[in-house]
Amino acid sequence: MAKDKLIGVDLGGTTIKFAIMTAEGEIQQKWSVKTNILDEGSHIVPDIVDSINHHLDLYQLDKERIIGIGMGTPGTVNIEEGTVKGAFNLNWKETQNVREQIEAGTGLPLTLDNDANAAALGEQWRGAGNNAPEVVFITLGTGVGGGLINEGKLIHGVSGAGGEVGHMVVEPDGYLCTCGNRGCLEQYASATGVVHLAQDFAEGYAGNSKLKAMVDNGDEITSKIVFDLAKEGDFLANEVVDKVGYYLGYASANISNILNPSAVVIGGGVSAAGKILLDRVKTNFQKFAFKSTRDVTEIKLAELGNDAGAYGAASLARISDRTITA
Amino acid sequence: MAKDKLIGVDLGGTTIKFAIMTAEGEIQQKWSVKTNILDEGSHIVPDIVDSINHHLDLYQLDKERIIGIGMGTPGTVNIEEGTVKGAFNLNWKETQNVREQIEAGTGLPLTLDNDANAAALGEQWRGAGNNAPEVVFITLGTGVGGGLINEGKLIHGVSGAGGEVGHMVVEPDGYLCTCGNRGCLEQYASATGVVHLAQDFAEGYAGNSKLKAMVDNGDEITSKIVFDLAKEGDFLANEVVDKVGYYLGYASANISNILNPSAVVIGGGVSAAGKILLDRVKTNFQKFAFKSTRDVTEIKLAELGNDAGAYGAASLARISDRTITA
Repeated sequence: MAKDKLIGVDLGGTTIKFAIMTAEGEIQQKWSVKTNILDEGSHIVPDIVDSINHHLDLYQLDKERIIGIGMGTPGTVNIEEGTVKGAFNLNWKETQNVREQIEAGTGLPLTLDNDANAAALGEQWRGAGNNAPEVVFITLGTGVGGGLINEGKLIHGVSGAGGEVGHMVVEPDGYLCTCGNRGCLEQYASATGVVHLAQDFAEGYAGNSKLKAMVDNGDEITSKIVFDLAKEGDFLANEVVDKVGYYLGYASANISNILNPSAVVIGGGVSAAGKILLDRVKTNFQKFAFKSTRDVTEIKLAELGNDAGAYGAASLARISDRTITA
Repeated sequence: MAKDKLIGVDLGGTTIKFAIMTAEGEIQQKWSVKTNILDEGSHIVPDIVDSINHHLDLYQLDKERIIGIGMGTPGTVNIEEGTVKGAFNLNWKETQNVREQIEAGTGLPLTLDNDANAAALGEQWRGAGNNAPEVVFITLGTGVGGGLINEGKLIHGVSGAGGEVGHMVVEPDGYLCTCGNRGCLEQYASATGVVHLAQDFAEGYAGNSKLKAMVDNGDEITSKIVFDLAKEGDFLANEVVDKVGYYLGYASANISNILNPSAVVIGGGVSAAGKILLDRVKTNFQKFAFKSTRDVTEIKLAELGNDAGAYGAASLARISDRTITA
């Protein structure tokens, strides 16, 4: 029987999303279950195994047709060993033998990576990356993460920290980062970074601005509020968005100067701001990019939203050469 | 007959260096010929072919034993096509079908790349990289070039500009670069960059300094003079070396933050300064590197000197899957 289906699993702190798709990435079934983090997260892997086995039964899909399972997970993934540690939102305190358990429980090969890398692969394959082999993905959420794809494969580096674009230093001696360094991209382009910039700029601004009034009033500021006010023409909010666009454009250019990708794809919650952010990232990218990459690297918004993780997980299985050695 | 030998060719503007080595990189024969750039460089490729054929005869080495030829060249290389264009120091104005001609003339498969990439592979394989799969190479000469090796292979990017570390922008709105941008690493860490910094710093310094005296006197300054004076304790020269170390350390850290290599290897003429430069690069690397890479990425001086190109060229053949389709 020809192997023609992929299973993608996007493991998150609140839900586990599953998708069965063709080898070309057409989703045929998708479902999700709640993540049960009780008992040190010990139910999570058995729940994944049960859910996959149950749904394959339900859809009467022969396991012989499955190319493999791919999964994106929080925490630090050991690609060689197929283990995960330090996934605090899953309550996984000790190292988990995720691959061993899922392969034993399903009889299918599992390829594992971290969630940012999985999302990067998803966008590269089926999203804004247009399945080109060289794509950079930057995700702007509470923090800033990413993934780098070269010749169709993720760059992992020697200890799995490849693609940590959020900790590029874009402002030497800038804002203190949770990592201990100063001036990391994460401190300027994450949701919290945008708010930090807004508060900082409000302090030094004396003109008329709704954003400034809100900050002075002690109102809760979110990155969405900043972008919405910028769209309404608020001066201070636009100054903040200029600065976010500057740092993202600068970082995108420096990444592209050394990797020369066909696209830098920007995703995550903050990227929902859309064109108002993207245009400024592009302007700064053009300024800082080396001529060889300036004309070939496109700066784009992500296209798959929350589905990027499941697509990318399936793509992990798609490009893996892992097989079950029974 | 078992294939067990590699041929490495390091094509430069004044000499062409050749080496025959084992598959493990032990050099068995090496020789060089002058580069004849007359007649629009049209003798270069035939000379290479003749020299290889002649030496294989001379050493009675059967072509059946040759795994392949690798070659590093100036100019812009089209890896897919095996062509070179824009190699001005070879007088190659038009696109040259280098691979086609060398394969036809020798009957051996040729793998081609640019000289900086070849040197990077050489240092990765047989030099400071210790044959680890993830190595970054930065070469400091008249300009700043480099090569990025991931999973044992060069990162080329979508249009071959991967590894252009010299054009990372390390000082937004800094010194104007020949590429048209401002603040590229090349403007601070190349031989000319070091001299530029020295002249710049001398202008703003009123204290006692031999370097300042030389600049004020209109003496010719070289990067070697700056480093030598710094070693003698000259205050201004040390300020310049501090700054070079800062930019190189900062760039090395940001490259490592996203690629997570086991080593950043610094080579080229300027790196002959040695420990006085390396120590300051390391200090700044430690400051700007993300914790996941800070402890695993070593900053090292290159070890192969002028032989890096020939080793790397041979390594191109070693890791290539190119064969002659007769």
